[in-house]
Amino acid sequence: MKEELFLFSNKSYPCYFDGDFNQLATILDKEQAVIITDENIAALYEERLDGWKKIVISPGENNKQQFTVDSIIQQLIKLKADRQTFIVGLGGGVITDLTGYVASVYMRGVKFGFIPTSILAMVDAAVGGKNGVDVGIYKNLVGVIRHPEFLLFDYSFLQSLPIEEWVNGFAEIIKHACIKDKELFKELQENSLSYYQSNKEAIASLIRRNVEIKYKIVASDEFETGDRKLLNFGHTIGHAIENKHSLAHGHAVSVGMVAACKISEQFEDFQYTNEVIQLISQYKLTTHFDYTHKEIWDILLMDKKKSGNMMNFILLKDIGNALIQKIPLTELENILEKLN
Amino acid sequence: MKEELFLFSNKSYPCYFDGDFNQLATILDKEQAVIITDENIAALYEERLDGWKKIVISPGENNKQQFTVDSIIQQLIKLKADRQTFIVGLGGGVITDLTGYVASVYMRGVKFGFIPTSILAMVDAAVGGKNGVDVGIYKNLVGVIRHPEFLLFDYSFLQSLPIEEWVNGFAEIIKHACIKDKELFKELQENSLSYYQSNKEAIASLIRRNVEIKYKIVASDEFETGDRKLLNFGHTIGHAIENKHSLAHGHAVSVGMVAACKISEQFEDFQYTNEVIQLISQYKLTTHFDYTHKEIWDILLMDKKKSGNMMNFILLKDIGNALIQKIPLTELENILEKLN
Repeated sequence: MKEELFLFSNKSYPCYFDGDFNQLATILDKEQAVIITDENIAALYEERLDGWKKIVISPGENNKQQFTVDSIIQQLIKLKADRQTFIVGLGGGVITDLTGYVASVYMRGVKFGFIPTSILAMVDAAVGGKNGVDVGIYKNLVGVIRHPEFLLFDYSFLQSLPIEEWVNGFAEIIKHACIKDKELFKELQENSLSYYQSNKEAIASLIRRNVEIKYKIVASDEFETGDRKLLNFGHTIGHAIENKHSLAHGHAVSVGMVAACKISEQFEDFQYTNEVIQLISQYKLTTHFDYTHKEIWDILLMDKKKSGNMMNFILLKDIGNALIQKIPLTELENILEKLN
Repeated sequence: MKEELFLFSNKSYPCYFDGDFNQLATILDKEQAVIITDENIAALYEERLDGWKKIVISPGENNKQQFTVDSIIQQLIKLKADRQTFIVGLGGGVITDLTGYVASVYMRGVKFGFIPTSILAMVDAAVGGKNGVDVGIYKNLVGVIRHPEFLLFDYSFLQSLPIEEWVNGFAEIIKHACIKDKELFKELQENSLSYYQSNKEAIASLIRRNVEIKYKIVASDEFETGDRKLLNFGHTIGHAIENKHSLAHGHAVSVGMVAACKISEQFEDFQYTNEVIQLISQYKLTTHFDYTHKEIWDILLMDKKKSGNMMNFILLKDIGNALIQKIPLTELENILEKLN
C-alpha cells in the first residue's frame, strides 16, 4: 500500500488512501493487535476478521459513553493487553472516538490506528486526533487529543454502508465546502448522493479531498487556537440538539449549519443561505428541526467553544470563507429566540 | 512566594517550596477555580477553604476509581466549568492523581495545579505528571501523563497529618535514597520519624531534597524509556499486593523493596538487604507480608512494566545505585515462589 505522510507538531503518521484491510497484518503484529469494532461490522465482515483478537461493542452514538470505555478496559484486561498492545479502531465515528480515547488512557497510552468504515468517520472523525465520549446529552465532553499511528482507507467497506449513513456523512463534506472550498460546493451541487454511491472513483476522490481539507486545517492549528475552530461550523446548535433529540450527527449539524447561515446574514451580510439549504436538501439532510432556544440553552452553555461570557461562533462571509465571531451569551440568547 | 522553575520537554511550571495556601488567590482567578479535595481536608480546613468552589470526595485509595472520576465530572458540569476553569487538587496522592486525570480529560484538558498535603503526595504523587485511577485491584491502570501549571508546598498542612500517613510517606523517601542518594540513606539512618515530625526545617529540607531527586529523574526521561523506570523500585510486587490486600501504599512498597533487595542479591550480589530492612523498620514500615506468589501472579502480569514476556524489574547494585534488569516471566515466577 502506498502511504502519504501526515505531519503534526510532534508526530507524523502514514495515511493509506488506497488501503486494503487484508494487508493490515503487514503493518502491525497480528499477535499484539486488538481490533475494536461494533456488532454490525463484526457480523458483516466475520471472515475478514477471522484470526484477529476483537472487542465488539453495541453500535450507536448512545453507546459513546464512559460505560462502554469501562467495558472495553475490562476486556483489554481479560486479553492481558499490555503496553506493547496495538489497538485498531474499525468502524464509524463512534468506534474511532472510543478507540482513540481508550488507547490514550489505557496504561497511560498504547498505540492505535484507525480503519474508518463510514463516510463520516473517513472524512471527519478519524482525522485530527480528537477523541472521547459524550457525557449524557453533552457531546464529546470528555476526551484527549492524540494522533493514531496510521489511517487506513479501504473503500470496500462502504459497499455495506446503509443509505442513512451515506446521508449522515455528507453533512461534514458540505461543511468542508462551506468553510473552505467553493469549488467543492459547486461539485456537490452538480452531483448527487446516488452518483457518489455508484461511482467508486468519484467517492474515493471526494473522500481524499475532504480528508486533505481537514488535515491541512488541523496540522496548521492542532490545539484549536485559531483556524481549527472553523471546523465547528454548524456544530454549536448541532451538538445542542443532537443527543437531546437523538438526531443523527449529520442531520443535527445540517440544522446547525442552516441556523449559522441565518446568523451569518445578520453579522456578515451573508447572501447564500438558500444555496446552502438547497444543497443540504439535495443530499437528503435535514434543514429544519423544531426546537426551542430554551431547551437547548443549558446544553449550549456547556459547549467547549464557550469562553467566559462569550461563544466562539463560526459564521460564513461567503461560500468557502468562514470566520470566528465572538458573540456575547446574552446576545446569542436573543438571536436564538428569534431564529426558530 | 518565591518560585523555582521546573522544566520539562514541552512545559515548564513554577514550584513554590515555601508556599502558602492563603496566597493561592494571587496565582489564579478565584472565580474560575474549582478545588478538588477530600472530606478530611474539607473538615479540617473549612475556614481556609471558605469562598472557594469545591468538589469534595470520600478519602482513600479505594475511591481512586472511575466512579469517582464520573462523579467529579458531573459536579464540574453542575458548576458550569468550562475550558477557562482552573482545577486545584488539594490533598494526598489520591486527590492529586484524580485531579490531574479529570483535568486532563474534561473538555479534552483544562489547566490544573497541585497543593499536596501529605508527605507521600509532596515527595512523589504530585511530581512528574503521572495521573490516573486504579481499575479494581489493578493500580494506576488508566491515566495519562500531563504536568500541572504549578506545585505549591504549604508545610502547615502536615500539622494535621495522622501518624500513619507520615509513616506511609517515608517509604518513597527511603526508595529515593535506595536508588539515587546514599547520603540521604545515611541521614535517614541517623534520624527518626519523630525527629522529622517535630523539626519543621528538617522536614522542609527533606521534602525539597526528595522532590528534586524525583524532578531530576523525570525531567531527564519524561516518558519512561530509561532512568524513570528506576522510580518503580519496590513497586512491582508492591502494586501487586497493595489493592489485593488493602495495604497502604507505603507499606506495600516497603514489602516490595525488601523483595527487590533479595532478588538483587541473586542478580547483582547486593550486600545491603539488612540495612534496607533495618531502615524500613526504623520508620515503622512493613518489612514482611505473607502472600503467595500464586495470588499475585495474575495482577503482576497486568503491570505496566511488563513488556511481552519480560518484566522490567528494578534492582539495586549498591545503596544509591539502581538498575533495570529484564527478567523473563517464567524465571520471575520461580524466583517469587522461592522468595516468600
